[in-house]
Amino acid sequence: MGPAISLPRLRSRIEALSRFGRNPDGQGISRSCWSPAHEEARAWLLAQMKEAGLETRVDPAGNVFGRLGGPGPTVLTGSHIDTVPQGGPLDGALGVLAGLECLETIREAGASRGRPLAVAAWSDEEGRYGSLFGSRCFTGRIDPGTIATLSAADGERLADAMARAGFSAPEATRARCDPRELSAYLELHIEQGPHLEAARIPIGVVEGIVGIRRNRLTFVGEPDHAGTTPMARRKDAFLGAAEYALKAREHIVKKGSGRSVTNFGRVELAPGVSNIVPARAALLQEMRELDPKILARLDRECLALARAVARRRGLRVEVEAQSRTEPARCAPRVMGAVEAACGDLGLRFKRMPSGAGHDAQNLAAVTEAGMLFIPSKGGRSHRPDEMSDWKAIERGGNVLLGALLHLAG
Amino acid sequence: MGPAISLPRLRSRIEALSRFGRNPDGQGISRSCWSPAHEEARAWLLAQMKEAGLETRVDPAGNVFGRLGGPGPTVLTGSHIDTVPQGGPLDGALGVLAGLECLETIREAGASRGRPLAVAAWSDEEGRYGSLFGSRCFTGRIDPGTIATLSAADGERLADAMARAGFSAPEATRARCDPRELSAYLELHIEQGPHLEAARIPIGVVEGIVGIRRNRLTFVGEPDHAGTTPMARRKDAFLGAAEYALKAREHIVKKGSGRSVTNFGRVELAPGVSNIVPARAALLQEMRELDPKILARLDRECLALARAVARRRGLRVEVEAQSRTEPARCAPRVMGAVEAACGDLGLRFKRMPSGAGHDAQNLAAVTEAGMLFIPSKGGRSHRPDEMSDWKAIERGGNVLLGALLHLAG
Repeated sequence: MGPAISLPRLRSRIEALSRFGRNPDGQGISRSCWSPAHEEARAWLLAQMKEAGLETRVDPAGNVFGRLGGPGPTVLTGSHIDTVPQGGPLDGALGVLAGLECLETIREAGASRGRPLAVAAWSDEEGRYGSLFGSRCFTGRIDPGTIATLSAADGERLADAMARAGFSAPEATRARCDPRELSAYLELHIEQGPHLEAARIPIGVVEGIVGIRRNRLTFVGEPDHAGTTPMARRKDAFLGAAEYALKAREHIVKKGSGRSVTNFGRVELAPGVSNIVPARAALLQEMRELDPKILARLDRECLALARAVARRRGLRVEVEAQSRTEPARCAPRVMGAVEAACGDLGLRFKRMPSGAGHDAQNLAAVTEAGMLFIPSKGGRSHRPDEMSDWKAIERGGNVLLGALLHLAG
Repeated sequence: MGPAISLPRLRSRIEALSRFGRNPDGQGISRSCWSPAHEEARAWLLAQMKEAGLETRVDPAGNVFGRLGGPGPTVLTGSHIDTVPQGGPLDGALGVLAGLECLETIREAGASRGRPLAVAAWSDEEGRYGSLFGSRCFTGRIDPGTIATLSAADGERLADAMARAGFSAPEATRARCDPRELSAYLELHIEQGPHLEAARIPIGVVEGIVGIRRNRLTFVGEPDHAGTTPMARRKDAFLGAAEYALKAREHIVKKGSGRSVTNFGRVELAPGVSNIVPARAALLQEMRELDPKILARLDRECLALARAVARRRGLRVEVEAQSRTEPARCAPRVMGAVEAACGDLGLRFKRMPSGAGHDAQNLAAVTEAGMLFIPSKGGRSHRPDEMSDWKAIERGGNVLLGALLHLAG
């Protein structure tokens, strides 16, 4: 048996971090990146890393690193300490604090000094200003020109938020890493879905992170009087959008990979009044799938379906591709290290995709990257009652520890 | 042959009134009640009435009257001079100016001094602050307590708008009429629909004005993560609302009167972001029908349908009745006067319901009321290109004249 993490120490850190940004009613945590609560949490984290014997560093994008070992290509772990509004205590925090726990355990045990190890907390993973911002800067996957344009939904500019926290937005691209200094990346996270809990399997070995297409489809009809225009003569943009949404959902369920998903999270009608037939109905559609060929095919097929529905109803459809991230495959060597650690501990595991985006998808562009999941209670996340069992957290921490030791060699 | 209206005089007044509130680009007219453009139009209208030899009066609800003849139960005609934003030159204006033209023609011809006649321009028919406000005040169909709460969609309070125009909102209920002073009400309007044009019939004799039900139906599901929650586990409020809208539309088309209509003019999703399954989808549904029994049945059946759709999808549905106006039947004596006038002029007519609301529905509560329609080009209204033929306008004016003479006895 190798070394093992200390659950009491990890738990006390998870509970301590959960107090930063705790909402006044005690329910939920709102700790968006660069906010005062986040900056207090950053200071606390740096102090914890130092106390654990790690060498600390904060880069120009606000990413926090705690390092163990000398120079040379590093085995990285980590996640993020920002949360969504009204979030829970584990999304992000678990990966950072379990990584810290692993490094402290390794230092105390004097185990594995093959390659250096480091734990990272990436900035603004939840994307108040820009999704996966810190890891995009670190891996060079951000256009420097766009940083000045980033802002939150309430209009607050990233540059102002960073300045208030003592950072300079134009400097953020200087966080870019030299890929030769990286050996591998492995991130522990809660599943945020129901599969592991339903299958009673303690560890998910992530095969890849799904790609995401976001399209805005606007059905265009005529703004007729809703009292005097006969039903048969109307060109109702909303009914076209409604028919399309139901059919696109069926298409993706039946013709996708079986794990393909889609969502219509926002709908906007114009003119948007009771007594005028909707002339415009804009649907924000999101599609996610791990296989890039299937994702591209579903995207094409849905657009053809939208055009067919519109044509039959005498409508037009305008399509605007809003964003696309390509699927990221996890590295076989990293998956192998997680599976070997499960084997060492006698734990069952299952391979699965990640339906949510993670910083690991950016790290995959510069090094061999992977993730492991532990079960989420009720599949819940991004809400105050997001949780896992403490036993499950301990297992996840020990698998992360074993896998990091395998990767460090 | 009796007297006939002067089309050149009527046309020049329609063109003059259309300049008040004309949008800077020359397209469309925005003349909401109490706005500076509306108040300038009111002053112009009062001057035109005086010039035509009518006795003028403005009541505390802002209704303008031009009167011809002595005391006693009056035969009223009229409509309104306010417009929707980006409206056209005929909706409302035609009925007021054709009424003025008829009274001027009668005065000049010295014809029919049976009963006194008056032409009215009712306040805020289009309902920037409160639909059919002026005629509701005149007929006592407004709750005095609600006047203080009325405001526009942009938040402007009716009381402030009226004060700016020199009126006092709390005084508006003093506009209430004594029904014994009314003999009949007849309003000329464009059809705002395609039926007369399609049938090539110059005059529509309105049998009644449809009743309207407005319900807000909110489908309630779960705000799950749109990447990690399997499709089969989602409780998607939007897809429930979409299925309901399509089915309710079919139900009303197939099980209504054949002229029953429905519209979903506004849809609101919450939380309204791309990556969260909609937990709430609120549909604003409107239904219109002339037969009160059919309207009540369709309302009940749609609610049952909504509950069935929600149940099958694991959703709840919350229903809020937002407003209801009951259908108003037109008076046989007034319809008879219109049909007699058509007979005198050798014009074909058809009986039809009004799918739009009009001040006549309020007048029907206090006197014998009716309406006549002339064709709308392309069925269009509430838009800059709302029009009719000048020949059709002349025919409509002469039928109004003949019917008023019949009613005045």
